[in-house]
Amino acid sequence: MKHLHKPRLDVKTFKEGILSGDRSVLGQAITLIESNLNSDKVLATGLLEKILPHTGNALRIGITGAPGVGKSTFIESFGKIIIGHGKKLAVLTIDPSSLATKGSILGDKTRMEELSKNSMAYIRPSASYNALGGVAFKTREAMLLCEAAGYEVVIIETVGVGQSEVSVKGMVDFFLLLMLAGAGDDLQGIKKGITEMADALIITKADGENIKHATAAQATYQHAFHLLSKTESEWQPVVLTSSATTGAGMVDVWKMILKYQHETKSSGFFQRNRALQNIIWFREFFMQLLNADIHKFQSLQKFQKELEGSVANQTVSAETAARELLSAYHQSIKGIKS
Amino acid sequence: MKHLHKPRLDVKTFKEGILSGDRSVLGQAITLIESNLNSDKVLATGLLEKILPHTGNALRIGITGAPGVGKSTFIESFGKIIIGHGKKLAVLTIDPSSLATKGSILGDKTRMEELSKNSMAYIRPSASYNALGGVAFKTREAMLLCEAAGYEVVIIETVGVGQSEVSVKGMVDFFLLLMLAGAGDDLQGIKKGITEMADALIITKADGENIKHATAAQATYQHAFHLLSKTESEWQPVVLTSSATTGAGMVDVWKMILKYQHETKSSGFFQRNRALQNIIWFREFFMQLLNADIHKFQSLQKFQKELEGSVANQTVSAETAARELLSAYHQSIKGIKS
Repeated sequence: MKHLHKPRLDVKTFKEGILSGDRSVLGQAITLIESNLNSDKVLATGLLEKILPHTGNALRIGITGAPGVGKSTFIESFGKIIIGHGKKLAVLTIDPSSLATKGSILGDKTRMEELSKNSMAYIRPSASYNALGGVAFKTREAMLLCEAAGYEVVIIETVGVGQSEVSVKGMVDFFLLLMLAGAGDDLQGIKKGITEMADALIITKADGENIKHATAAQATYQHAFHLLSKTESEWQPVVLTSSATTGAGMVDVWKMILKYQHETKSSGFFQRNRALQNIIWFREFFMQLLNADIHKFQSLQKFQKELEGSVANQTVSAETAARELLSAYHQSIKGIKS
Repeated sequence: MKHLHKPRLDVKTFKEGILSGDRSVLGQAITLIESNLNSDKVLATGLLEKILPHTGNALRIGITGAPGVGKSTFIESFGKIIIGHGKKLAVLTIDPSSLATKGSILGDKTRMEELSKNSMAYIRPSASYNALGGVAFKTREAMLLCEAAGYEVVIIETVGVGQSEVSVKGMVDFFLLLMLAGAGDDLQGIKKGITEMADALIITKADGENIKHATAAQATYQHAFHLLSKTESEWQPVVLTSSATTGAGMVDVWKMILKYQHETKSSGFFQRNRALQNIIWFREFFMQLLNADIHKFQSLQKFQKELEGSVANQTVSAETAARELLSAYHQSIKGIKS
C-alpha cells in the first residue's frame, strides 16, 4: 500500500498546520508518528520537538471498560457535554482487538457518529500496531499533537482487558472506569488492578428499569472503593451512574472531573504528577531503546533466549546470567565502528 | 568494624556446611551475600552457583501487614503449626524501618522467642541495607541458601508500607496479608495495590471480645475480594481469622496454603509461576546491572539528571532525551579499555 501514501509534508508545514488547528494536517501528522519507516521516524522526532512547547494544555482523561459496557455511546454523550461547555475535544482510541482487521477508523467514526461530525471534536483511532508498548508511545505522541492543535480536552479510550490501561494511566490526568450494573458481581472481564487505578467508576446504562440496579451497584462499589482504595492524589475515588440514552449523569461526571482538576491543581499534585509522568516516560523510553539496542544484535538475542531457558529451569542463577548478558552487550557495542 | 569480621570460609566449606544444615555456616553465608565488599561479592556469586541445584524445594510464603497488626506473634504461633507438621521452617524478615538502627537481629529474635529457640526453625532478619532493590535481591538469595540448607518452608516477612511487597510477591509461592478488624474501614496504612496481590487475607487478634468484629470484617473483606479481585492462578483469595493468643485459626491457614499448593501444582500454575519468576528476576537483575553500569560513568549520571530536568519541564521530549542518553552510553562503553 506504500504507493498510496500521500507525500509527507516538511516539518515547518506540519508545525504551522497543526498550530493553526488544520484537521487534515493533524491527521497526517498522527499517521506520520504511527509510521515505522525510518525516514518517517526521523521526521516525526523533529516535529515532536517543534510542537513540544505548545503541548500540555489539555485536560487528559483516560476511559476504559470491558467490551459491551457502552464506551462509545458514553463518549458520544459525554463528549457533547464537554463541547457544550465550549471545549474542543479530541478522542483517541486504543483497541487491541482491531489489531487483526486494521479497519477501525471507519468503525470508530460510525460508533461516535454525532461527535465525528462536530467541528469541535476530533476522533482518531490508533490504526497501526506493532507491540503494545509501541502503541502507548504513539498514542501519547498523538495526544501531544492534538494539544498543539488546540484541543482542550483529550479523551483516550481503551478496552479494559490488557496492559494498555497501565500505559494510559501513565499519560492522563484522570482515569475513568465504566462498568455495567447487574452483569454479575465480578469485574466483567476487567483485569485485576484496573479498578485500583480508577479515579472514578461510572455505572453505565442507568436508565429505565436499570436505574435501581445501577443505584444499588453504585452503593456497593462506593463501599468497596472505600474499603480497598487510597490514592496518592488524596482524591477519594467516586462512583456515579450515567445513561447515554437519556444523558442522565453526564453533567455530574464532567463536574466531578473539573472538581478533581481544581483540587489537584491547588494541592500541586496535578503538576507533580505531570512532571513525574514525563520523567517516567523518559526512563521507559530509554529502557525501550536499550532493549531495542540489545535486540539489534542477533547474537545477543539468541544468547538471551538461551540464558532465559537456563534461568527458568534453575541451571544458571539470574545473577550470573545477567552478568554474562551485560558482558556480551559491551562486546557488541565495542564492535560497532564509530 | 571490619576487623571484627570472621575470616571468610572458602566456597567448598560454605557449600558443605550449608548442605549439611549447619546453622552457623548458613548464617555466615547470608552475611556474605549481604556484604558489599567486592571480594565478598565474587565469593557470593560462586557460592550461589554451587548451591543452585539444591534450591527450589521449599514452599515459599510471603507475609505482610501494617505495623501493629501482629506479624511476629502470628508467625510465632503459625510457625509452631508448621514445625508441628514436621517441616523445617526458615523466617526471613525485611524491615525497612530497621534501616536506621541496624540493630534488628536481636530485636527479631526476641520478637519470636519460642521459634528462635526451636532447632527446627531458623530466623534471620535482613540486617544490612543499601537500596530497597538490593535488599530484595539479597533476601531472595538468602531464601535460596535456606532451601539448600534443607528448610522446607520459608516465610518472608515484610512490613506492608512500601515497594518491598512487590518484590516479595515476585519471590514467593503464596502471599498472605494480615489485617486487624475494627481499626477503621480503610487499609490501615497498607498501600494501594497490596490487597490485590494477596492470595489470602488473615484478620488477626480474633480472640475474646474481638471475635465478633473479626468475623464481621472477614465477611466484609471476603465480599470486597469477590467484587474486586481475580487472580491469574485461578485461586479465589480467601479471608480467614486467627489468634496468636489462642492459636485459633492457625491450622486452617496452614491447610489453606497446602490446598493452594496442591491445586496450583495440579494445574501447573505453581511451576509456571516459579519459572516465570526466575526469568523476571533475570531480566530485572540485568536491568539493574545495566543501570549500575550507566551510573558507573559519573558524566552519564550528571547528563541523565540534566535530561530529566528538561523532560520534567517539557523543554525536551522524552524520546529525544532517551536517544541522547543512549548515545552517550555507547560512547562511554567504547571508551573502556578492554
